[in-house]
Amino acid sequence: MKTFNDSKSQHLEELEALISSSLSEKELEDRLSDYHDNDIAEILEKLAPQERLRLYRILGVDRTAEIFAYLDDAGPYMEELSLEKAANVVSHMDSDDAVDVLEDMDESRKAEIVKRLDHETSEDVKLLWSYDDDEIGSCMTTNYICIHNDLTIRQAMRELIRQAGENDNISTIYVVDEQDKYYGAIDLKDLIVARDTDTLESIISRSYPYLLDNEKTDDCVDRIKEYAEDSLPVLTQEGKIAGIITSSDVVEMVDDAMGDDYAKLGGLTAEEDLNETTVESMKKRLPWLVALLFLGMLVSSVVGMFEAVVAVLPVVICFQSMVLDMAGNVGTQSLAVTIRVLMDENLKAKQKLGLILKEARIGLANGFVLGVMTLAVLGIYIHFFKGYDWGHAFLIAACVGGALITAMVISSIVGTVIPMFFHKIHVDPAVASGPLITTVNDLVAVITYYGLSLIILIDMFHIAG
Amino acid sequence: MKTFNDSKSQHLEELEALISSSLSEKELEDRLSDYHDNDIAEILEKLAPQERLRLYRILGVDRTAEIFAYLDDAGPYMEELSLEKAANVVSHMDSDDAVDVLEDMDESRKAEIVKRLDHETSEDVKLLWSYDDDEIGSCMTTNYICIHNDLTIRQAMRELIRQAGENDNISTIYVVDEQDKYYGAIDLKDLIVARDTDTLESIISRSYPYLLDNEKTDDCVDRIKEYAEDSLPVLTQEGKIAGIITSSDVVEMVDDAMGDDYAKLGGLTAEEDLNETTVESMKKRLPWLVALLFLGMLVSSVVGMFEAVVAVLPVVICFQSMVLDMAGNVGTQSLAVTIRVLMDENLKAKQKLGLILKEARIGLANGFVLGVMTLAVLGIYIHFFKGYDWGHAFLIAACVGGALITAMVISSIVGTVIPMFFHKIHVDPAVASGPLITTVNDLVAVITYYGLSLIILIDMFHIAG
Repeated sequence: MKTFNDSKSQHLEELEALISSSLSEKELEDRLSDYHDNDIAEILEKLAPQERLRLYRILGVDRTAEIFAYLDDAGPYMEELSLEKAANVVSHMDSDDAVDVLEDMDESRKAEIVKRLDHETSEDVKLLWSYDDDEIGSCMTTNYICIHNDLTIRQAMRELIRQAGENDNISTIYVVDEQDKYYGAIDLKDLIVARDTDTLESIISRSYPYLLDNEKTDDCVDRIKEYAEDSLPVLTQEGKIAGIITSSDVVEMVDDAMGDDYAKLGGLTAEEDLNETTVESMKKRLPWLVALLFLGMLVSSVVGMFEAVVAVLPVVICFQSMVLDMAGNVGTQSLAVTIRVLMDENLKAKQKLGLILKEARIGLANGFVLGVMTLAVLGIYIHFFKGYDWGHAFLIAACVGGALITAMVISSIVGTVIPMFFHKIHVDPAVASGPLITTVNDLVAVITYYGLSLIILIDMFHIAG
Repeated sequence: MKTFNDSKSQHLEELEALISSSLSEKELEDRLSDYHDNDIAEILEKLAPQERLRLYRILGVDRTAEIFAYLDDAGPYMEELSLEKAANVVSHMDSDDAVDVLEDMDESRKAEIVKRLDHETSEDVKLLWSYDDDEIGSCMTTNYICIHNDLTIRQAMRELIRQAGENDNISTIYVVDEQDKYYGAIDLKDLIVARDTDTLESIISRSYPYLLDNEKTDDCVDRIKEYAEDSLPVLTQEGKIAGIITSSDVVEMVDDAMGDDYAKLGGLTAEEDLNETTVESMKKRLPWLVALLFLGMLVSSVVGMFEAVVAVLPVVICFQSMVLDMAGNVGTQSLAVTIRVLMDENLKAKQKLGLILKEARIGLANGFVLGVMTLAVLGIYIHFFKGYDWGHAFLIAACVGGALITAMVISSIVGTVIPMFFHKIHVDPAVASGPLITTVNDLVAVITYYGLSLIILIDMFHIAG
């Protein structure tokens, strides 16, 4: 049996062939009902414009809307439709998908289409647009089932069936009281297995978690994840239901949140995408680089203090980059681990201390291994390629190795403490930590390395290049 | 109105007070039904052991199982239960949760409990254990509704209600043929709104996507995400349904997949967690560090070639670290962007070239800004603090600035091309790229910087320290 991905691509080829085939429209509609909307969305780009238009006509506006909701960038395909058709398609989408699709179009056309949306959809779209991109409200959908808490089981079931025609997020049914305020939620399963003699109250979960429309998505994505529900209601300040967040929204949120942290660790202020202009990307990267430049100058001025060492013993500069790089690498590792830990759980002081000690231990252990390697390899290298006698060669190598161990231990600690500090003062550690850690580690590495060289090589043993 | 998180913590305090209150068990059971399982799971740690045991008794084994499924580490709480009770709780869990909880216990106790599981659960647990951790089969659940394709709508509905008592993932109903092979899926909504006169066939989606039990999770997580379904069936090699993946499993998968890439960018071979031993963590970090050490030595030997420059003009070493760091930072930014892009979409050759050119443009633009800053600041710094006359000071600063621009442009390109190359040859770019990029960028930076210094400062202008 083929893997998901293989069978998938074959499946898509069949689909493509089918659409370009000479089947009657009736037959085609029939056969297409066996294909997933996402699959049809994927092959759209492979079709000729007129093939696409024919396809939409055959599938009908409802299914076309479903398919468009799966497109990464619906813009070009919407362009092919008349304003009326486009508006009609958007009107048949979930509010959050409708907003996404509209975002894919240029302002003028977007405005034209919004004018032509049916009343309900345009209300929904305006509602979602009324929130900032980082607010929960901006990614909710108004596609959900809502009933009053005074119904009987039988009435509730009938109401569900009535609304299910319009709304397909039915696994959780939301309940409001007589003032239309959020009252609780019913797991569809409980409604289905309930007996007519049961009261609705008995199957309503009053504790069902909810979100507020203007909360920052990043602040609650972890909690949302924890509850692991199929959907969560989003309430207005008045406690009315504004919409819901579905599990696929949650997947998106988690993906985005992680993607941002990932970008930040890489030294971008936010995740970039392919379609961004050079200037937009510059804006995201330059701040960090300028900060690093000036911090780098600080390091340079410290290196400058050791010019004397270098003047006497130029060989030492060969290994500066190595010591600094290693210190930096170790710091980054500790940073990556610490940020993830801080993100996932709330650490008690004791655990934090434990983490710092653990990082220090790892730094020491790794530093020792690398330090020994360095001593051995560089000792030989310096003797043969730099022409120092064995004793001096290994003394110099020892300075490098020693500096390596010291720098790695301190870097591990710095790489753990600094993100914890920023987290404590509610500054995003993923953004703020990087530059600071690099700089501190560079300074530590420079001072230990040149310091050791000065004391041992020059003051103690009077070695000169 | 309070935010999700505020109201949440308050909510938990109420719950804690409630449990420690002197309410009768009947009342308490009643009140507790208003709280979410996840909330109760969160306050468990705050209770005394006997309070917990009382709580379990009041809630009953079914709900206790639900609550345990929400615990990050159920181990200590399971310890408090007798083997029979523990086995009973695990027997009431979804198979994937059961496996997770068992993993939290030490081997001996785990074995004892598995012996005591009810037949169905122990079968399910053994099934999930038969897969590797990185296979889809290991994270599926056997909690789903499955019917035959020869039923009528009415029979299907009755069957659903019967099975819904046992299984609560009902939003999608899976259909098998007479040989019990996977036939398709029914959206519960379609079943609910269907008329008795409709045929079941008419509402079965034959194209509903499926997974294979032994596929690598990482390979298909993106596709799973795309389909945005509440659940997907996992098939055996024979095409029978082994279990399903639910949306909360998908959230976990996405989180893990991203977490790993994040860790890799930070130079770890895999994501670490708090409970790992120092040795385990060392194993994950050392390989990368050793690689970097030897690559660092390579860089050192190149730096060594320019000892002459430093011997004549020690001031230049002050700025080596700065140029190298900046080159590295720019490379990391390009790397982070490129990996995310490669992860998200399949790029055509043209788009890849576009991305490379874009990164180069950004590198040049940012490099120019930083280069000018450097020229200005360092010129002044070198004049006043290093005692060179204005002309020489700015010549030296110009070398640093020039090296910076060149290094940043090349680093951006390197940071984009290398991950693309690894992606092409199916090596995970997030792991492999880091060290190579650092090294190449260091080499480029060293050569441009010292090269420029040698040519301009020493050969052309014969400046000496």
